[in-house]
Amino acid sequence: QIAAQTQSQIGKDGYRHFMEKELHEHPVAIGQTLQRVTDPVTRRITLPDFPFNAAELPRATISACGSAYYAGLVGRYWLESLARLPVDIDVASEMRYRAPPQPDQGMALLISQSGETADTLGVLRFLKEAGQKIVSVLNVEHSTMGRESDLVLGMVAGPEISVASTKAFTAQLTVLAALALTFARERGTLDTAAEQELTAALLDLPSRAAEIFSHLEGIRDMARVVAQARDVLYLGRGSCMPIAQEGALKLKEISYIHAEAYAAGELKHGPISLIDQTVPVVAIAPSTILFDKMLSNLQEAKARGGRILAFTDAAGAEKLKDVAEQIVVLPDVDAFVAPILYAIPVQILAYEVALLKGTDVDQPRNLAKSVTVE
Amino acid sequence: QIAAQTQSQIGKDGYRHFMEKELHEHPVAIGQTLQRVTDPVTRRITLPDFPFNAAELPRATISACGSAYYAGLVGRYWLESLARLPVDIDVASEMRYRAPPQPDQGMALLISQSGETADTLGVLRFLKEAGQKIVSVLNVEHSTMGRESDLVLGMVAGPEISVASTKAFTAQLTVLAALALTFARERGTLDTAAEQELTAALLDLPSRAAEIFSHLEGIRDMARVVAQARDVLYLGRGSCMPIAQEGALKLKEISYIHAEAYAAGELKHGPISLIDQTVPVVAIAPSTILFDKMLSNLQEAKARGGRILAFTDAAGAEKLKDVAEQIVVLPDVDAFVAPILYAIPVQILAYEVALLKGTDVDQPRNLAKSVTVE
Repeated sequence: QIAAQTQSQIGKDGYRHFMEKELHEHPVAIGQTLQRVTDPVTRRITLPDFPFNAAELPRATISACGSAYYAGLVGRYWLESLARLPVDIDVASEMRYRAPPQPDQGMALLISQSGETADTLGVLRFLKEAGQKIVSVLNVEHSTMGRESDLVLGMVAGPEISVASTKAFTAQLTVLAALALTFARERGTLDTAAEQELTAALLDLPSRAAEIFSHLEGIRDMARVVAQARDVLYLGRGSCMPIAQEGALKLKEISYIHAEAYAAGELKHGPISLIDQTVPVVAIAPSTILFDKMLSNLQEAKARGGRILAFTDAAGAEKLKDVAEQIVVLPDVDAFVAPILYAIPVQILAYEVALLKGTDVDQPRNLAKSVTVE
Repeated sequence: QIAAQTQSQIGKDGYRHFMEKELHEHPVAIGQTLQRVTDPVTRRITLPDFPFNAAELPRATISACGSAYYAGLVGRYWLESLARLPVDIDVASEMRYRAPPQPDQGMALLISQSGETADTLGVLRFLKEAGQKIVSVLNVEHSTMGRESDLVLGMVAGPEISVASTKAFTAQLTVLAALALTFARERGTLDTAAEQELTAALLDLPSRAAEIFSHLEGIRDMARVVAQARDVLYLGRGSCMPIAQEGALKLKEISYIHAEAYAAGELKHGPISLIDQTVPVVAIAPSTILFDKMLSNLQEAKARGGRILAFTDAAGAEKLKDVAEQIVVLPDVDAFVAPILYAIPVQILAYEVALLKGTDVDQPRNLAKSVTVE
């Protein structure tokens, strides 16, 4: 809503598209969001008071649509591994009608850039009716979802004009990372040293994110391969699996290339039959996340004629040099924040491919910015 | 394993491929599996004693790979809606390393045709270590997974030679439907009249499944459209969403066409930008499952130039006649068993497309029947 109202007053600041401008705003969106959740004195991650006792939460339900759903999948990974909180997650249009049994005193976590997404709002109302405490992660806090929530955790991404979401996605992830750290502290599942280490990794992220923009040449080389394909597979594992999904969705949305994401371990259970030289494989492969498993999955794909394009770090690049045709080397970061960092080059790749294809990047066919119908 | 040993002794009985023969064995596989779980006197669904009190189960965890995972997704839907049992589900290669927190006294449900799938076996061992009672749904009961389970629920699909799974999938679904009905009875979430109605729908399924083989001409017409495409979207909702996933995987596996499944409600959150005349949309759309929502999703796709190919029933066909370019009308069945019935024509479609493409149907490139490595 805000995006629509302010579009006329917001310029592109010399960028060719709003999407390009907003991609460059990733470090600022992450940084501003972090400022909002960081106590300036203690430098600890600090969120507003919860409408429940986090230590006693039995379970959480997460729901959202599109990219926000993928952010939720990363959030599930963090909440389960750091705070040992079991999470049920589904896309909103399914969750609403699947209507899974809800625990007493559970938390529902809804994620939406606009706060007006009809499917997600429908789930919010269903889960509220089912007695869940409603926590929303929103960019537009003064929205219908904002008004109907027990607690709003705001991202500070600023207006997003491009239909394809960019900085709102990393800002959502940043809020979810802060939530997982806070829950872990309150549930006693993370000791102080580990909390400090993960907090430091998070607070360091805006600088690491800014460094990515010195790797654009490598991403553009990769884009030239992808732009010639009609079909692309994206692979990830663990907390970076949803980043593969985000990459595939973004490419689909703005370049109309049929990209699909798979958990890398599922490849051999079917989709590997699709792979030949015409179907490049994009791997989201930080060396810190199940890397040896990923490496073996990629070797299988290469053995079937697949062309491997990898996003990794220096240690990963060394091991991938005989497997991948192209490698974009990203800054070293803790595995915890890798999904946030890796989302950025993956979105830039989609943008660069769309440029090569000459599509209408900011207004892709058939799509609306905020989907207020079911 | 059994499949490999017996292949030499099993003929194709006049069919062109093992896959064609095994497709025709759907009614028998479902029927034999039902016989095994039906008390011959009371005609009630009756399973072996559980190693836990089903009424007190707090939660279940389901895991599997490939088609068996999609069967598990339908199983989740049934367990949640009929037996009000919350379910966590993930592909095995992710579940194993995600290692979500497990409840005390929970049940783990693993699904595998061969009982030797390395990823699924890994999850079995992880969940056993985490104190879960292990229930396996297997075709080959004398297998590693069979030996390590607390309870084996056998499907009676007979040997499956074709690499792409067919009858084992509907047999898995049949076992899961029986499990959901049994749990619902023991948990007191289904009254006797409803139980009788759903049991009758299940026991009637082999006859309804046999009727499908008189609709092959319509499926062949549809195959001619799909075979010309390089990319296809499959849409489903609710308990038929996983059938869309099964259809897309099967097409990918044996025809090498890039098919991808989406929850129909997610279409407008991104993938709809892919749709044009060259990307047919296959809808799994029984009139009994969120049909009006599906209809509106399909109208959106058609408005963007999409060619709609629908599997539905007589009532659905009437409402889809101005939307779908081709319709295959299936027998009327209760919504409960629709996922099992609709799996059959969806697999036949993949087979017919593969015939037109001239691929090696029984031994698709890059794939093995049972994946015993990670």
